[in-house]
Amino acid sequence: MEYRIEKDTMGQVEVPADKLWGAQTQRSRMNFKIGAPGSMPLEIVYGFAYLKKAAAYTNHDLGVLTEEKRDLIAQVCDEILEGKHDDQFPLVIWQTGSGTQSNMNVNEVIANRAHQLAGKKVGEGEKTIQPNDDVNKSQSSNDTFPTGMHIACYKKVVENTIPGIKQLRNTLHNKSIEFTDVVKIGRTHLMDATPLTLGQEFSGYVSQLDHGIIALENTLAHLSQLALGGTAVGTGLNTPLGYDVKVAEYIAQFTELPFITAHNKFEALAAHDALVETHGALKQVAVSLNKIAHDIRMLASGPRSGIGELIIPANEPGSSIMPGKVNPTQAEAITMVCARVMGNDTTVTVGGMQGHFELNVFKPVMAAAVLESAQLIGDACRSFDENCAVGIEPNKETIKSLLDNSLMLVTALNTKIGYYKAAEIANKAHEEGTTLKAAALALEYVTSEEFDEWVKPEDMVGHR
Amino acid sequence: MEYRIEKDTMGQVEVPADKLWGAQTQRSRMNFKIGAPGSMPLEIVYGFAYLKKAAAYTNHDLGVLTEEKRDLIAQVCDEILEGKHDDQFPLVIWQTGSGTQSNMNVNEVIANRAHQLAGKKVGEGEKTIQPNDDVNKSQSSNDTFPTGMHIACYKKVVENTIPGIKQLRNTLHNKSIEFTDVVKIGRTHLMDATPLTLGQEFSGYVSQLDHGIIALENTLAHLSQLALGGTAVGTGLNTPLGYDVKVAEYIAQFTELPFITAHNKFEALAAHDALVETHGALKQVAVSLNKIAHDIRMLASGPRSGIGELIIPANEPGSSIMPGKVNPTQAEAITMVCARVMGNDTTVTVGGMQGHFELNVFKPVMAAAVLESAQLIGDACRSFDENCAVGIEPNKETIKSLLDNSLMLVTALNTKIGYYKAAEIANKAHEEGTTLKAAALALEYVTSEEFDEWVKPEDMVGHR
Amino acid sequence: MEYRIEKDTMGQVEVPADKLWGAQTQRSRMNFKIGAPGSMPLEIVYGFAYLKKAAAYTNHDLGVLTEEKRDLIAQVCDEILEGKHDDQFPLVIWQTGSGTQSNMNVNEVIANRAHQLAGKKVGEGEKTIQPNDDVNKSQSSNDTFPTGMHIACYKKVVENTIPGIKQLRNTLHNKSIEFTDVVKIGRTHLMDATPLTLGQEFSGYVSQLDHGIIALENTLAHLSQLALGGTAVGTGLNTPLGYDVKVAEYIAQFTELPFITAHNKFEALAAHDALVETHGALKQVAVSLNKIAHDIRMLASGPRSGIGELIIPANEPGSSIMPGKVNPTQAEAITMVCARVMGNDTTVTVGGMQGHFELNVFKPVMAAAVLESAQLIGDACRSFDENCAVGIEPNKETIKSLLDNSLMLVTALNTKIGYYKAAEIANKAHEEGTTLKAAALALEYVTSEEFDEWVKPEDMVGHR
Amino acid sequence: MEYRIEKDTMGQVEVPADKLWGAQTQRSRMNFKIGAPGSMPLEIVYGFAYLKKAAAYTNHDLGVLTEEKRDLIAQVCDEILEGKHDDQFPLVIWQTGSGTQSNMNVNEVIANRAHQLAGKKVGEGEKTIQPNDDVNKSQSSNDTFPTGMHIACYKKVVENTIPGIKQLRNTLHNKSIEFTDVVKIGRTHLMDATPLTLGQEFSGYVSQLDHGIIALENTLAHLSQLALGGTAVGTGLNTPLGYDVKVAEYIAQFTELPFITAHNKFEALAAHDALVETHGALKQVAVSLNKIAHDIRMLASGPRSGIGELIIPANEPGSSIMPGKVNPTQAEAITMVCARVMGNDTTVTVGGMQGHFELNVFKPVMAAAVLESAQLIGDACRSFDENCAVGIEPNKETIKSLLDNSLMLVTALNTKIGYYKAAEIANKAHEEGTTLKAAALALEYVTSEEFDEWVKPEDMVGHR
Repeated sequence: MEYRIEKDTMGQVEVPADKLWGAQTQRSRMNFKIGAPGSMPLEIVYGFAYLKKAAAYTNHDLGVLTEEKRDLIAQVCDEILEGKHDDQFPLVIWQTGSGTQSNMNVNEVIANRAHQLAGKKVGEGEKTIQPNDDVNKSQSSNDTFPTGMHIACYKKVVENTIPGIKQLRNTLHNKSIEFTDVVKIGRTHLMDATPLTLGQEFSGYVSQLDHGIIALENTLAHLSQLALGGTAVGTGLNTPLGYDVKVAEYIAQFTELPFITAHNKFEALAAHDALVETHGALKQVAVSLNKIAHDIRMLASGPRSGIGELIIPANEPGSSIMPGKVNPTQAEAITMVCARVMGNDTTVTVGGMQGHFELNVFKPVMAAAVLESAQLIGDACRSFDENCAVGIEPNKETIKSLLDNSLMLVTALNTKIGYYKAAEIANKAHEEGTTLKAAALALEYVTSEEFDEWVKPEDMVGHR
Repeated sequence: MEYRIEKDTMGQVEVPADKLWGAQTQRSRMNFKIGAPGSMPLEIVYGFAYLKKAAAYTNHDLGVLTEEKRDLIAQVCDEILEGKHDDQFPLVIWQTGSGTQSNMNVNEVIANRAHQLAGKKVGEGEKTIQPNDDVNKSQSSNDTFPTGMHIACYKKVVENTIPGIKQLRNTLHNKSIEFTDVVKIGRTHLMDATPLTLGQEFSGYVSQLDHGIIALENTLAHLSQLALGGTAVGTGLNTPLGYDVKVAEYIAQFTELPFITAHNKFEALAAHDALVETHGALKQVAVSLNKIAHDIRMLASGPRSGIGELIIPANEPGSSIMPGKVNPTQAEAITMVCARVMGNDTTVTVGGMQGHFELNVFKPVMAAAVLESAQLIGDACRSFDENCAVGIEPNKETIKSLLDNSLMLVTALNTKIGYYKAAEIANKAHEEGTTLKAAALALEYVTSEEFDEWVKPEDMVGHR
Repeated sequence: MEYRIEKDTMGQVEVPADKLWGAQTQRSRMNFKIGAPGSMPLEIVYGFAYLKKAAAYTNHDLGVLTEEKRDLIAQVCDEILEGKHDDQFPLVIWQTGSGTQSNMNVNEVIANRAHQLAGKKVGEGEKTIQPNDDVNKSQSSNDTFPTGMHIACYKKVVENTIPGIKQLRNTLHNKSIEFTDVVKIGRTHLMDATPLTLGQEFSGYVSQLDHGIIALENTLAHLSQLALGGTAVGTGLNTPLGYDVKVAEYIAQFTELPFITAHNKFEALAAHDALVETHGALKQVAVSLNKIAHDIRMLASGPRSGIGELIIPANEPGSSIMPGKVNPTQAEAITMVCARVMGNDTTVTVGGMQGHFELNVFKPVMAAAVLESAQLIGDACRSFDENCAVGIEPNKETIKSLLDNSLMLVTALNTKIGYYKAAEIANKAHEEGTTLKAAALALEYVTSEEFDEWVKPEDMVGHR
Repeated sequence: MEYRIEKDTMGQVEVPADKLWGAQTQRSRMNFKIGAPGSMPLEIVYGFAYLKKAAAYTNHDLGVLTEEKRDLIAQVCDEILEGKHDDQFPLVIWQTGSGTQSNMNVNEVIANRAHQLAGKKVGEGEKTIQPNDDVNKSQSSNDTFPTGMHIACYKKVVENTIPGIKQLRNTLHNKSIEFTDVVKIGRTHLMDATPLTLGQEFSGYVSQLDHGIIALENTLAHLSQLALGGTAVGTGLNTPLGYDVKVAEYIAQFTELPFITAHNKFEALAAHDALVETHGALKQVAVSLNKIAHDIRMLASGPRSGIGELIIPANEPGSSIMPGKVNPTQAEAITMVCARVMGNDTTVTVGGMQGHFELNVFKPVMAAAVLESAQLIGDACRSFDENCAVGIEPNKETIKSLLDNSLMLVTALNTKIGYYKAAEIANKAHEEGTTLKAAALALEYVTSEEFDEWVKPEDMVGHR
């Protein structure tokens, strides 16, 4: 491989000749061989592209950067956002906890690419723009990385997670309406209970997701606050007056999302409770999804030895050994995602709790975990929706048969003959394997006409 | 010990003669010898007392309970809320996951105590009011227990947790203002960085707690929704029309808190995402408190071999072997609370994810965990505030000495001579153990006058 | 209340006149009003009693404590171990993270009680033995507290947890043998699969618990290592030569458990990986128990609309509204315990990771979590065993009916006619709602005789 | 793109013409668009290659597979293990929870590649060997996937994790010996304490890692047990007699690792407590590493305003804004890894607890988490070792200065003048800012000669 020489304040480093990064990126590659290369999420790189462009515009507006440099920086940022330089960001999550090396990776790529755009050859001549003094002007890793991660996480949540949840929520809502007249046995403690409609059962899932979406949206205000303008320790050293507000406005403009400058820059560098908060809501959604998906697979269990009240789409052969087997694979995928998200919550918590003094140095692992959870939940909701939920159908025959057999219909008699006599009826029917009505009549607690009038499953599903 | 005979639908049970509980409570005592007796939080019992009274009033209003029974039930509930029967609730958390046995415990105690209030002897004659048919009228364990736990958790959060956090927040805010002119060295990566004021540092803590309070308050809307009226599976079977709304109004009236009936009763029984949501915010606060308390103890470390920038109150001898030792014990207590709360979050998550069909049967463990966290955070904030935070003083001598020695003041030169030359100065001073100014002059990058004008710590703490 | 004056190095404190504790205990009560009083586990106090007695003996043997003082100390320790002074230890978990105050609580109670035993009145005259100089001789909180918590945890694990798990394991093993000929349908992905015996299914549970017991036992070696002799920072300052080995021998003798002195005292004070290790195994057991208990309740679900293959004991009325309902309450209690233990694992992890320099100051919360988990798992296993597992019976009628209906018996034909043709048969039977045999014959892939010979469930359960 | 038609029991599917996979792999790609493609770890694919080869050999030995087919299968497996087909495994973790689709991916690639090796064109003519009937002979996804994941995890732990930990452990051990005479101040509660040597301090780290290695090795016995031979539900249906033992022997032979057949196949399919157990030990190591790395960065903090007792290598510029800044970046990377591993432990726990009946369907997410943790810990230990630990040097000047100033040297006087008088001396020196000796003499508790003889730091570091 061919190399060129790049320099930083510690000296010279050999960099692959065909790469745009510089000395500090290369040092990081050599010093942090941990896990697969390139694990730093590209979404964060794109977050940097937005903020570097915004910083260049703000610096120019405030008189500390030339128009020419601003435009060169902005042009490279646009290229990055178009995905043209995805292979120029080889660093891993497991680097310095401030993400300094990824900030420098971006600074170096922008500087070298700008050199090319200025018609020069990378590695030759004085750099047209300097990574530290120009691209990083009025910035520090300590405010850029958290800004980049807030941009990345906010975008992911509003563009992938929430739409994915809503898509599934809407399908479940439609099913809830569609199933509004399907009266079925309820189950509490996994045991037979009083009836409800399948639509009511699904309405509970919808309500869970509605609450989850609200919870997630509640966290966005904190996440919309950007650290940029705090520089090294939150004081905004080396920034021109008014920089923080203006740079956030540019970011809001470029991303079309309601970002604002953080009310308190010291918190914004030293703590990442905003990520903790957002991930807390993602975890809540995972809790909901686990319940919903597991319910659906249990209701669809069988086909002959399970509950069998639902029929779900058969998407692929289920077994390499058992012919004809079909499995609730989408439920399995999404519950595995839930397990991952719950684990990520611990990771974010452990990282978040360990900020020290003016800087939390668990930024990359926290941001990566939030992004992964936000991606997986959105994707899994869509996958579960399109490959399972939309196709759910009630198995009406099974549902009716289970309902008619249920002993818990006896509950309707509580208000007529009291809980104790009703219990006697249920116990007698259970022990003798007969119907409730037969037991009720044998005990002479009700007449046949009374039983038929009082024990109607369709009247037991609420004041509708 | 003397016993009397109590009965339920399964038969007779011997109950200690001097206790008010009945057969089902006694069965639970015998069947669940897990951990210390009486672990079910009394707050949940009190939540039950509110709701039983509210149900009695609503049942009477809607014509299904006599005024006499209503008043007897209400009178016992008031006694319970006055703490007169605390020893009548011996059950453990580790019972049935619906909390049915604790619901019956309350029903039985109310029924037997009402019998006494009616001038009769417990165990003699027909019960004046029936535990199931009267006290539990229009109710199920499945809607009462979650209602009781929402009441308990909501009250705890607004009456203990949030006031505790606010008390500490206000002290830190006052300190932040008090320390507004104390310029000190910043630390990032635990390493010397550019300066800030001690007031700014504390303002970050205040901001964390402000965000935590907002996050906690955001969860109250979900928590204010009560399951009562859903009865067995959410349909409201055996409740009179209008019951759910009215009973929530009575609960709101009795507790003076803004409870409402749950929008979706199926969710309210089958999932406890509201607890997951509230505990998520408690966990976020724990993350914040861990950061704050740990920072403070590090800043107060020493007295001679640590950082020593803060002086905290000496409340007790710190060591049984090292004479004269004083330790940051309040910080230790609160960070241990944080560890507990983080663990409780896993418990609540694991319980919350496992609702099945129409009922989540992890109610007691989830509620107990939320209550414990809410109690501990409130208490620990108050303890930390009163025994540590209010007494924090800056060690101005140490602060000044460390500031003046710092190499990172060189950052102020970036905008004058560029990042690279500034780095040279810092490196030279570090290697030679000299001052920045000496190194700067030796390198001839600045004049003595320029250095003095440009490198002023008090000018490096922001646009204030 | 009446008070007497007690003193420590900080001055005078008022102590309730009828209590044996001294100044430092009282300070802790006033300074740490967090959660319920007395939350510090008594097991740790007893651990202290063992070690204080052992230290007195060792100090005497090595010539630094008189026989008279040794005997006084030992006598009080014996009284403590007999439970005579349980009300003298009012402190909470949420105190100093070294547990210093609980160490002093023990020292003070021993000193004052010894004063009484010496025929004097507490608070009058020179103390017969000094809390720091005599009771705490050759000790520090920093080595006594971890010693006390190791003793407490080790005892709890071997005396409660492991016996509890073994009791349940043995019952399940007996059931496994008892059910050896009960052929039933298997279920994978919750869907019908090839058959196995109920005995085989239960043997999997036994194997899980066997592995769990081994895992737990593997952790005991680390837990058996005692910090005592390390004193303040691990160096053993102020201990006589040979003290550490001898004091561990005494502890082993008094507890009849194989305790030894820690190989490395620096680790023993600064890190509590032994607790992390032990709790990791407790958590593994919780994972196993959750699987086992949940399987059993699903297999016992119904009675008419679930799987219904198992019949479990009906211990109490299951519902306050649904008459005659019986629920798998023991499974619910133990799975709630599992949720708690999983949360405790996070607590122990978060505490364990934050040791700083020579001391981990999360000792009380870590020890309390390990003790709680060890208690709850042992208790819950016993409760589940005695109130559920021993009474489990197969519902042979249901089992046979489900087995005979199963489409997955077709797998036996793979080796005869190939996977693809077998799949055709299963699909046809599923779509047409017929039997496998009918479909097989209709497709003419096998003869009636071949089918009967090849498809025998009892031949599909392995090389037994 | 060009496609060919592949078939499975559900019908035809279009597959990219240049790919070796078949219908079921393609279905999975279409049905599970969750997260980045190809996330299923290659290590698991390699685990499959070992077991498919071993199964082919065993099947041939036991007379159910021809030599020709055996050799074709083995040849493709060898190619896979050489990394020649890495791009043929595009599936994600978030698929069916049994990993069936990855098993079929391997079966399909082997079948198609064998077709090529047999001189034919993929997609043309009858397949030379069948994915289900030949490659998957005597197997099910349900026993192959857990076997593949055990092979992958075992290899990763013994080939990457343990060597990485040992490498770091050995360096720390060498440092411990090297620093054996460096007497320094101890710190407990982050506060000044009695002295120890830097070697002793490091010996605690070594001891932690030694215990961690033992804990990890303790888990290998469980992990060495392979599910293969259990087929669909653990009974071994469709396997020849003796298959399970022999196939494990072949796997042991091919991998050169001590794999054996699982003692209980029902557990081996239905529960993955072995992964829970192994990850529990990985988490313990993370707890240790967090302590060690955080200690080291605190000890190296400064250079002028921290503790500054250690000098660690300066590997890269630490700040994009603060010139000359050097940060403990390796400590940051490894503590972020620890946060990740702690999160993965929650994921593995949540997955492990949810096995249902005969199959746990959280296999892919559990295996991926264990592999990630095992990789990251090994890599991070090596990175931390090579880029930080080996270069650690004591800053002897700072160490001596801090030691000489310490008030806690007073502890040496306990045994001479008693704890109370010693405390008086320390308090006086602290309040007056003088030396211990000055205070001791002023109080007239010791003579100057006594003080000098009794208070020698180098005599306070233990019986060495």
